[in-house]
Amino acid sequence: MPSPSRPRTSNMPESQPHLVSASDPIGVFDSGIGGLTVVAALQEILPGETIFYIGDTARVPYGGKSRRTVERYSIEIGGLLLAERAKMIVVACNTASALAVPRMQDLFKVPVQGVVEPGARAAVAASKKRRVGVIGTRATIASGAYEHAIRSLAPDVEVFSEACPLLVPLIEEGLFDDSITDQVLARYLDPLLGRGIDTLVLGCTHYPLLRDAMARAAGPDVQLVDSAQNCALAVRDLLAERDIAAGSDHLGRLQVALTDSTEGFLRTAERALDLEIGEVELRSVQSDA
Amino acid sequence: MPSPSRPRTSNMPESQPHLVSASDPIGVFDSGIGGLTVVAALQEILPGETIFYIGDTARVPYGGKSRRTVERYSIEIGGLLLAERAKMIVVACNTASALAVPRMQDLFKVPVQGVVEPGARAAVAASKKRRVGVIGTRATIASGAYEHAIRSLAPDVEVFSEACPLLVPLIEEGLFDDSITDQVLARYLDPLLGRGIDTLVLGCTHYPLLRDAMARAAGPDVQLVDSAQNCALAVRDLLAERDIAAGSDHLGRLQVALTDSTEGFLRTAERALDLEIGEVELRSVQSDA
Repeated sequence: MPSPSRPRTSNMPESQPHLVSASDPIGVFDSGIGGLTVVAALQEILPGETIFYIGDTARVPYGGKSRRTVERYSIEIGGLLLAERAKMIVVACNTASALAVPRMQDLFKVPVQGVVEPGARAAVAASKKRRVGVIGTRATIASGAYEHAIRSLAPDVEVFSEACPLLVPLIEEGLFDDSITDQVLARYLDPLLGRGIDTLVLGCTHYPLLRDAMARAAGPDVQLVDSAQNCALAVRDLLAERDIAAGSDHLGRLQVALTDSTEGFLRTAERALDLEIGEVELRSVQSDA
Repeated sequence: MPSPSRPRTSNMPESQPHLVSASDPIGVFDSGIGGLTVVAALQEILPGETIFYIGDTARVPYGGKSRRTVERYSIEIGGLLLAERAKMIVVACNTASALAVPRMQDLFKVPVQGVVEPGARAAVAASKKRRVGVIGTRATIASGAYEHAIRSLAPDVEVFSEACPLLVPLIEEGLFDDSITDQVLARYLDPLLGRGIDTLVLGCTHYPLLRDAMARAAGPDVQLVDSAQNCALAVRDLLAERDIAAGSDHLGRLQVALTDSTEGFLRTAERALDLEIGEVELRSVQSDA
């Protein structure tokens, strides 16, 4: 039986000023491990920043779930990042970016940066033929978030989308360079290539791990837009604008926490992305667990 | 702020006698939709029984998660089934059966039937060469539950196991009869066939949907053991033994509830299994959602 003074069970932050310091970490989250591609891009561009990463492996994947569920999970993980003194939150998950960023921005006082808007901006800049393909999870594609973002930047650009639900499982099995992956990719990309796209947005943070296979499948005339990399550039600009970037003399660290003790393909991603991940912490997403 | 009289947030049942009536439903749960293969088997064998099915689609899949997480989720869903007056609980998920049934049996007074023990029993009865293969999710295979169950029934049987993490995504995409699925199956099954197995346990409730492709891949000399079907037989025996079977003059109904509003591959499974699923209810697995 809870006492009357027991706090609410959700992880929504209290309405109190968040004292942001430049030395505080950037909070990054993903439904699982895929968001580490964003971490790798951040570390390359912003080596002085400390990063606190949370992968919601207890509830992974988000890609087939409803908006309401993805919003709820994202807000909870956002709360965990604020508890780690995150000076900003990077939503390193396309599904959560597509479905939950507006609600998070309503709720949190720290800046919340998703991956969709930077990817859309880069695609618009890249496409000469004004025909852009977008691939992602079922939920990301169904949300129409990229299409909406691209067309509000450039109404003349035509957007063709394809949900690719088998790619994440193949990536999590480490089948980066494999005939089965090539066949699956061909099925997903052929309809887009048939529409004459010259730019392809990798609308899932897992996908940069399949960059080589995608480049083979798409051919030399299609430019790949990596939403992880473009998100990292947006974070750099945002930190500079708010004057909360860590000094470049400082050497950032990476801390990783997961919501389930199973590490999944963490070590595969660590090797593929050349990251240094030490001990992994466990964070509970259920108050009475 | 909760009032002092607010109930505990977990779904653990209160310690009160459960008044079981033969007309109460059989409660069936799975991490998602795959457990409907068990429902189809139950309906064939026990047409008089009403079935209340819950798919935990808000947290699907369980197959890559830790024992502690799978136990917690299973107990929560068990509580939801008790709230629907389930006279018994069928754990129609191999991962939850392998990891959580003992703990559920400790906690719940109604009978709890998993899929592992019936499958193991059928495999032991089927194997003439005393060499049995088991396929399942990562968590099921890592648990060693089938191996343990088979060897405690028949210590002379050799068990060879293979985790097949790509099969569930392929099934959920409806690729039942597809060259990509055939290639993936060959990779998983060839090592087992090389060990001279004559019996293969389909240790995941999704797998019966791939029965034809598996029969092709395994060849005519290997007998497939469908854990869904054998679980249904065990339920029939258990209901008879406890004298809580519904009368056969009665026509059972099927009610389906999911924990997320996204139906995933529910309609694909409904067609493939020839089930009649009407409106799908939503059940929350978070007290303050």
